[in-house]
Amino acid sequence: MATTLKQAYKPLNEQTVVGLAQKLKLFSDYQNIKVNEIGDGNLNLVFRLIEADTGKSIIVKQALPYAKVVGESWPLTLDRARIESSSLIKSAEFAPEHVPEVFYTDQDLALTVMEDLSSHVILRKGLIEGVKYPHLAQHIGTFIAKSLFYTSDFYLHPFEKKELVQTFTNPELCKITEDLVFTDPFYDINTNDFPSELKEAVSKLWNDTLLKQRAASLKYKFLTRAEALLHGDLHTGSIFVTETSTKLIDSEFAYYGPQGFDIAHFFANIALNHASQSFHISDNLRREEYQSYLLSVIKDTWETFTAHYRELWKTEGVESATKLPEFEEEILNSIFTDMIGFAGCEVIRRTIGLAHVEDLDSIEDFNGQIELKKRVLKLGSDWVKNAERIKNIDEFITYIRSV
Amino acid sequence: MATTLKQAYKPLNEQTVVGLAQKLKLFSDYQNIKVNEIGDGNLNLVFRLIEADTGKSIIVKQALPYAKVVGESWPLTLDRARIESSSLIKSAEFAPEHVPEVFYTDQDLALTVMEDLSSHVILRKGLIEGVKYPHLAQHIGTFIAKSLFYTSDFYLHPFEKKELVQTFTNPELCKITEDLVFTDPFYDINTNDFPSELKEAVSKLWNDTLLKQRAASLKYKFLTRAEALLHGDLHTGSIFVTETSTKLIDSEFAYYGPQGFDIAHFFANIALNHASQSFHISDNLRREEYQSYLLSVIKDTWETFTAHYRELWKTEGVESATKLPEFEEEILNSIFTDMIGFAGCEVIRRTIGLAHVEDLDSIEDFNGQIELKKRVLKLGSDWVKNAERIKNIDEFITYIRSV
Repeated sequence: MATTLKQAYKPLNEQTVVGLAQKLKLFSDYQNIKVNEIGDGNLNLVFRLIEADTGKSIIVKQALPYAKVVGESWPLTLDRARIESSSLIKSAEFAPEHVPEVFYTDQDLALTVMEDLSSHVILRKGLIEGVKYPHLAQHIGTFIAKSLFYTSDFYLHPFEKKELVQTFTNPELCKITEDLVFTDPFYDINTNDFPSELKEAVSKLWNDTLLKQRAASLKYKFLTRAEALLHGDLHTGSIFVTETSTKLIDSEFAYYGPQGFDIAHFFANIALNHASQSFHISDNLRREEYQSYLLSVIKDTWETFTAHYRELWKTEGVESATKLPEFEEEILNSIFTDMIGFAGCEVIRRTIGLAHVEDLDSIEDFNGQIELKKRVLKLGSDWVKNAERIKNIDEFITYIRSV
Repeated sequence: MATTLKQAYKPLNEQTVVGLAQKLKLFSDYQNIKVNEIGDGNLNLVFRLIEADTGKSIIVKQALPYAKVVGESWPLTLDRARIESSSLIKSAEFAPEHVPEVFYTDQDLALTVMEDLSSHVILRKGLIEGVKYPHLAQHIGTFIAKSLFYTSDFYLHPFEKKELVQTFTNPELCKITEDLVFTDPFYDINTNDFPSELKEAVSKLWNDTLLKQRAASLKYKFLTRAEALLHGDLHTGSIFVTETSTKLIDSEFAYYGPQGFDIAHFFANIALNHASQSFHISDNLRREEYQSYLLSVIKDTWETFTAHYRELWKTEGVESATKLPEFEEEILNSIFTDMIGFAGCEVIRRTIGLAHVEDLDSIEDFNGQIELKKRVLKLGSDWVKNAERIKNIDEFITYIRSV
């Protein structure tokens, strides 16, 4: 599992990436290719290549053998490039409209050549700016229904499913989630990151036996339940949008896990944005209207997801159990309950763990930010502890509204 | 996943097996080796080699590339030899006293050279004959506690655990269980095998919506929950015993699955023997006494298992959640509930599915056998449907007593 570099591995630069494009015959005129490195340099190199005459462009993404976070650098498997490109290719089988197209991959070089999505913006940025995306809920709900169903034992022959579980075995990236989402925020561990003003609220979490038990139980589900191929990190920073298009990117955390996980992360990050809007939009009417939109995204995503998932069970279920309506209800109920718990963990770790969200951290009023984060921590804790008592999506939404 | 024969594969015979022993330097005098083929020829070749002078003996087990069941022959992966020997070697790390020692393996030849256990008898035979094994419960309870704990996320680093999950990916043998234990007995499928006198009772099962839903739910757990390394087929025919020794054999179904599975199969087969004793032992007093012994095996196995499992959590738990007593309770409760459901499926499929048990089928009084099988089907159905309502091992045992 150690990160050993393949002999062939070498980071690309602006010259060699054009050579690669030429080798792959991606353009017609290599004298006029404009190259920009647009990655943040922490995890991956990301080159954008544009042919001046035609405007045709592609992205070359190459994993770096380390990660830089809060100034430190640690080794990180290059295998994540294989995981990411394999998951994009798999998703394109059933939802090509919601992932960047993959043109080429090289596992030794840990690189993927893919569609340029520069016309899109990162959803998190758009939400912080108060932009509405009228198709977002429909797109995400449909995508999740398809990816859960088409990669599950309900649809696949068990041999094929078990082969996919092996392909997407992703220990190093899963370990990051296991630690940073499910363990560290619930214990006094030095990866946590919060100001002293939150210390009292955080101590309360660390002393909450029921909360810790439920978080342990959710972690155990993450560790053991190979139900469907997940994106694995579906926060609003992993979604590229325009008014009419929705694309899921950065799927290097993909693995076989519990069905409720991805939709939980999407909802948790919408909820965090919802909470933050009391600081981002000063006009009361406009704020309330935008917050209603955010809640409608959650409701519509859930309803699209369940309707589509039910339809797939009915029309394409292969496993004999898909003919039992009672079992369908049981599965959907368990996805719903798991979703609430996972959303609770995500909300907590994004507030006091290693990786924060801009929605909250960009709030300039420091005292306001602290007070809001306290309420957000309570939201997360309530979700984790009360998951089994919350009966439907409206009750789930009521918790968000109460923050 | 297809059964493609490696070039090197060739079935051994009584000559070549001695050549193999010589190559491996297993004996000192190869002129006086007695060879017996003691397998049933349906699935495996099993050679027993004995050195005449010293009495020293070994077993050479070689998988055949097909299975013969009810007269038919179908291809069956040779990879099961790798699975079996790997699982024996893994078990020997924490419980060498309860598995045959492995001296040599050859994956191309699909063979394992291992300790000869001819001094032992198959537990099922012993139980049918009414023999008591005073250490059985202690041995099985301890073995299961150790194998569940030492192969789980509670003890292993997640990288190591995920590597073991891959090693023990066993699609073809799992498919047999998925079909024959969890699906076929609940539908009108031609692998089922029961006399017309049971048709009415069986139709009742096939029309029982709740039963089918619960069986589907148990199958889903079998398909998706990679909790611990299981034996995978722990009926009383997979256990070799003497008065003082207990050895688990035939672990070719080993894979990572739900923790409650193995102990369920052990209990279900004890329960089937218990039911059959009204025909095997005619003396009332002696029968009651033996049946009490069988129930005490179940109770003592469960108590040994839980006590040992708790002790391992306390003393050797690595995962931080093992420090939470509430989570320990949750895990043990879920093992218990799953166990009841899995035991119910095993009881049903051993009565009307493809693979029966001698305990029931050897009953000569045909009408008596039919009446008993009806009661056994009700037992299995009650367990599957009421698993969540049965609170402790005494209540579980009450169901067995009522048959």
